Amino acid sequence: MKPTSEILTNILDDVRHLIGQGKVADYIPALAEVPNTKLGIAVYTNQGEVIKAGDADEGFSIQSISKALSLTLAMGLYQPDEIWSRVGKEPSGQAFNSLIQLEVEQGIPRNPFINAGAIVVADMLSSRLSAPRQRLLDFARQLSGEQHILYDKVVAASEMMHSDRNAAIAYLMRSFGNFHNDVLPVLNNYFHACALKMSCVELAKTFSYLANKGVSVHTGEEIISPTQSKQVNALLATCGLYDGAGEFAYRVGMPGKSGVGGGIVAIVPGEMTIAVWSPELDASGNSLAGTRALELLAQRIGRSIF
Amino acid sequence: MKPTSEILTNILDDVRHLIGQGKVADYIPALAEVPNTKLGIAVYTNQGEVIKAGDADEGFSIQSISKALSLTLAMGLYQPDEIWSRVGKEPSGQAFNSLIQLEVEQGIPRNPFINAGAIVVADMLSSRLSAPRQRLLDFARQLSGEQHILYDKVVAASEMMHSDRNAAIAYLMRSFGNFHNDVLPVLNNYFHACALKMSCVELAKTFSYLANKGVSVHTGEEIISPTQSKQVNALLATCGLYDGAGEFAYRVGMPGKSGVGGGIVAIVPGEMTIAVWSPELDASGNSLAGTRALELLAQRIGRSIF
Amino acid sequence: MKPTSEILTNILDDVRHLIGQGKVADYIPALAEVPNTKLGIAVYTNQGEVIKAGDADEGFSIQSISKALSLTLAMGLYQPDEIWSRVGKEPSGQAFNSLIQLEVEQGIPRNPFINAGAIVVADMLSSRLSAPRQRLLDFARQLSGEQHILYDKVVAASEMMHSDRNAAIAYLMRSFGNFHNDVLPVLNNYFHACALKMSCVELAKTFSYLANKGVSVHTGEEIISPTQSKQVNALLATCGLYDGAGEFAYRVGMPGKSGVGGGIVAIVPGEMTIAVWSPELDASGNSLAGTRALELLAQRIGRSIF
Amino acid sequence: MKPTSEILTNILDDVRHLIGQGKVADYIPALAEVPNTKLGIAVYTNQGEVIKAGDADEGFSIQSISKALSLTLAMGLYQPDEIWSRVGKEPSGQAFNSLIQLEVEQGIPRNPFINAGAIVVADMLSSRLSAPRQRLLDFARQLSGEQHILYDKVVAASEMMHSDRNAAIAYLMRSFGNFHNDVLPVLNNYFHACALKMSCVELAKTFSYLANKGVSVHTGEEIISPTQSKQVNALLATCGLYDGAGEFAYRVGMPGKSGVGGGIVAIVPGEMTIAVWSPELDASGNSLAGTRALELLAQRIGRSIF
Repeated sequence: MKPTSEILTNILDDVRHLIGQGKVADYIPALAEVPNTKLGIAVYTNQGEVIKAGDADEGFSIQSISKALSLTLAMGLYQPDEIWSRVGKEPSGQAFNSLIQLEVEQGIPRNPFINAGAIVVADMLSSRLSAPRQRLLDFARQLSGEQHILYDKVVAASEMMHSDRNAAIAYLMRSFGNFHNDVLPVLNNYFHACALKMSCVELAKTFSYLANKGVSVHTGEEIISPTQSKQVNALLATCGLYDGAGEFAYRVGMPGKSGVGGGIVAIVPGEMTIAVWSPELDASGNSLAGTRALELLAQRIGRSIF
Repeated sequence: MKPTSEILTNILDDVRHLIGQGKVADYIPALAEVPNTKLGIAVYTNQGEVIKAGDADEGFSIQSISKALSLTLAMGLYQPDEIWSRVGKEPSGQAFNSLIQLEVEQGIPRNPFINAGAIVVADMLSSRLSAPRQRLLDFARQLSGEQHILYDKVVAASEMMHSDRNAAIAYLMRSFGNFHNDVLPVLNNYFHACALKMSCVELAKTFSYLANKGVSVHTGEEIISPTQSKQVNALLATCGLYDGAGEFAYRVGMPGKSGVGGGIVAIVPGEMTIAVWSPELDASGNSLAGTRALELLAQRIGRSIF
Repeated sequence: MKPTSEILTNILDDVRHLIGQGKVADYIPALAEVPNTKLGIAVYTNQGEVIKAGDADEGFSIQSISKALSLTLAMGLYQPDEIWSRVGKEPSGQAFNSLIQLEVEQGIPRNPFINAGAIVVADMLSSRLSAPRQRLLDFARQLSGEQHILYDKVVAASEMMHSDRNAAIAYLMRSFGNFHNDVLPVLNNYFHACALKMSCVELAKTFSYLANKGVSVHTGEEIISPTQSKQVNALLATCGLYDGAGEFAYRVGMPGKSGVGGGIVAIVPGEMTIAVWSPELDASGNSLAGTRALELLAQRIGRSIF
Repeated sequence: MKPTSEILTNILDDVRHLIGQGKVADYIPALAEVPNTKLGIAVYTNQGEVIKAGDADEGFSIQSISKALSLTLAMGLYQPDEIWSRVGKEPSGQAFNSLIQLEVEQGIPRNPFINAGAIVVADMLSSRLSAPRQRLLDFARQLSGEQHILYDKVVAASEMMHSDRNAAIAYLMRSFGNFHNDVLPVLNNYFHACALKMSCVELAKTFSYLANKGVSVHTGEEIISPTQSKQVNALLATCGLYDGAGEFAYRVGMPGKSGVGGGIVAIVPGEMTIAVWSPELDASGNSLAGTRALELLAQRIGRSIF
């Protein structure tokens, strides 16, 4: 069955009762203040059709969803070996910001979607780009086709005020030789990426290349190769939802990437890109109602990679 | 492109040079003595066609591949909550036989495909089946359609002689209340499951229900529901290859389950089941040439779930 | 100042208010049923004088205090290298029954006073003694001069019923080659040692050799050499109180060994042996009021090794 | 027996063959360049007598020995609860610069003698002293009676160039709220403390208060109270030699503090303070020949706290 706005609206109605059972991220005020009742979903098909419901056009902090965008950018700047010698491809089995595994495994992060891995990717971008922060913003604008997209400066500044643990991660990697630039400027770039403000519709459009063998549905450009597109989806499927990737695969059955702003992007390869938003998180740090919405969507339109 | 025996033969030729670069499992003599030159592959399509090459009809010790069979059996005997309250659905990020995470997470194994998880599943089977060992053997015979399938008694006895670490795992779970029967008889069943001797062709037939929404292609019976079939595939994709699941997803892009006997089963949902065998293992304990063969097959026939 | 029975009585009065703030060990009924109001202390001087107060003549389960006795016995049967290649001499920094460090450090326990270490020592005794259980009992009777000392069979049997975690520890060590006999008989011996029932007076007499350069004050026999006596005291000082050894050294300043039965033995080298008993434990598993009593005693008689 | 210069000279002769079997610290050039043949020992009795042998008057980088000095300073500025709520009193059971335990135990270092603990102490000094670096230098000069004592600026600068891991430790503690000042200035102070250049004779004089109930033998001043002196010795005995404290207690039997510059200070409470220097380190990071020299000294003069 094809997704329709009616299906999407029904799904939002069916998950709304979950609001109140999760917890909005509160480590920075700018996230804590987002109303927990926000709820939106958007589907962008490989034919370029947008289907949406709820608060699908309202921008929110994409947070860790940006890690997939940064990795995509790095894959265009580096050879595979250059990337995968500095960051692994395996699930971590641990919290997204743990330093334990990083110390045991001598500064090589498990995958590019935990904080340590994304910070290494940010370090890579800093080494090869003269203005990495502007480049990422341009990339998001290009892929979404929306020139108005901005960094939320309040969020970025607030993250920087609470950056101690990420600084610890970066310094630990630098002690192992796996971080090459100054810590604070790279973290500043990293936090700006997290502070990208985008809507469900914009996110679905932005990541359409992962559903379309590397070619942006919106622009028609090849962003990465078909093989690279499969690879990113494989990493998303095994590592994209922190320590909840198995549960997400079990229930939803699509590659995806979540952020603590409550957004999740999910991919149906060959068919469509989906973005959902509900700020309250489950114990793994993934959107509670958002995950359930994707689970219902997978059931009702009969899509799953499995 | 459809798989043909020529494609399969070429793939075996292309991976044969890897033999000598891995390491045959040697913790028990019965495995150490298997010639490292064995190499076979079989595809079983959802239309019931068998395509094969190399040593595809020679039986070998399926080892951990049996964990997927045992889980399937348990899913027919228990409600989901009964299973998933005792074993998780997440990748472990650790070696397959580590006790560290098991202690930290209070006796709940990360997933049913690491040793601890499979031992809990074996404990479940012992609680609900009067003759669990015979039942599993019958199940393998039924699914493969081959009545001659046997437990390799030498392997089973040898495993039992080297069972200390698995006994430690079982006792640790029992100390947390997550193991209910006597340890040694359950381990004995567990080791017998690992000692099932099957060929690539038999394995591909046996697991065809995972490629066919829960219905065995060979027998036409519904083994598990379509939803359960997706769930098992999701768990295989995230947890089926020990601490190499991400790498396998990245390179092969199919749900799969490996064993230290050198076998790997991989699923193309909706299309086919694949089994490959080459005894030498990589650092994660997965068949070195077998993984490469699946990677080449995925490329040449253009199949991937991503 | 010399200890007097008045000083000891005053100390017990001064610590009695702590009763109710700790927790009696309750993992087996035989320990849980001990009245939490029991409180006793005994000093045995190197001149052979007994000074005591409270329930100093009532027997209780000495539990881990037996680990020091078993080690002493093993030191008479093995060369130092034979012992210290199988068990370390360092504090663990972890709970007394953790398997984590044991796995990381490949089956070599940190020291002979955590469970794993004492189980290795029990394994050593089983290898060299024809009747290790009787031998340890004889040893306790000889050192205390009390022939009536017995194993509490109810405690020993009850421990055996709750032995899963210790069995896990033993099997894990066996998987690393650091355990040589059958697991259950050795555990049975180990639990019997823990189930020795002795009073404060008997304990103080028993361990007098550690305060007297290896020579039992009571019998005049050299139990171990002066050097070995110093070595045992050194190990007690750094490892004798589980993960509370630093705190105990800081507050009490004597080598000591505690048991979850609420007993603690402490040594003032060259002068006296002290035993105290109060069943309620602190968070580290050491007697709450007992530790405080030793702290007060150290202050009031002005003794400390520091 | 009393220590004499002949005894000390003989001991140095007897340990000299160990040179070549350890490893000079080489993480910074300034340490790596120190000749491995340096060997000195000094005893400072509570009667104010200096006995010495070898390179006992040559200054070297005291490194972690400074941690005991900084703690002493902090004990004069803070109430016990203020200190011990921010840093523990237990051995770590891990390497001196590990972050693993620090994350598990939520930013509270195990004890003041591992890096994390000493960095917290440095943070405390920064909070209460206007010029903590000058104050520590004055303290060392006062205690040793040598006004010429200096920070080795080359060592301090070199440490700062290799400070990534310690920065990671500090940031991790700050993320848990257990670090209050700017990271880099505190680290700079910390590295300066490590870069104090002192000789064996100066060290023995400096730490004489620990052998003399808190009163400096050299100046006659009470540096800390008798109780505090015992407490520091207790912490040194259980935590002063990194993950080799148990071995040091077993072999030497004195409270001590080592540094990667190859120095060790050891205390015989009530009698004397000893300092030894030999740059090559054992696997735990303690001076190899230095530890052996202290072991021989303990045997030959018959001193031990046990």
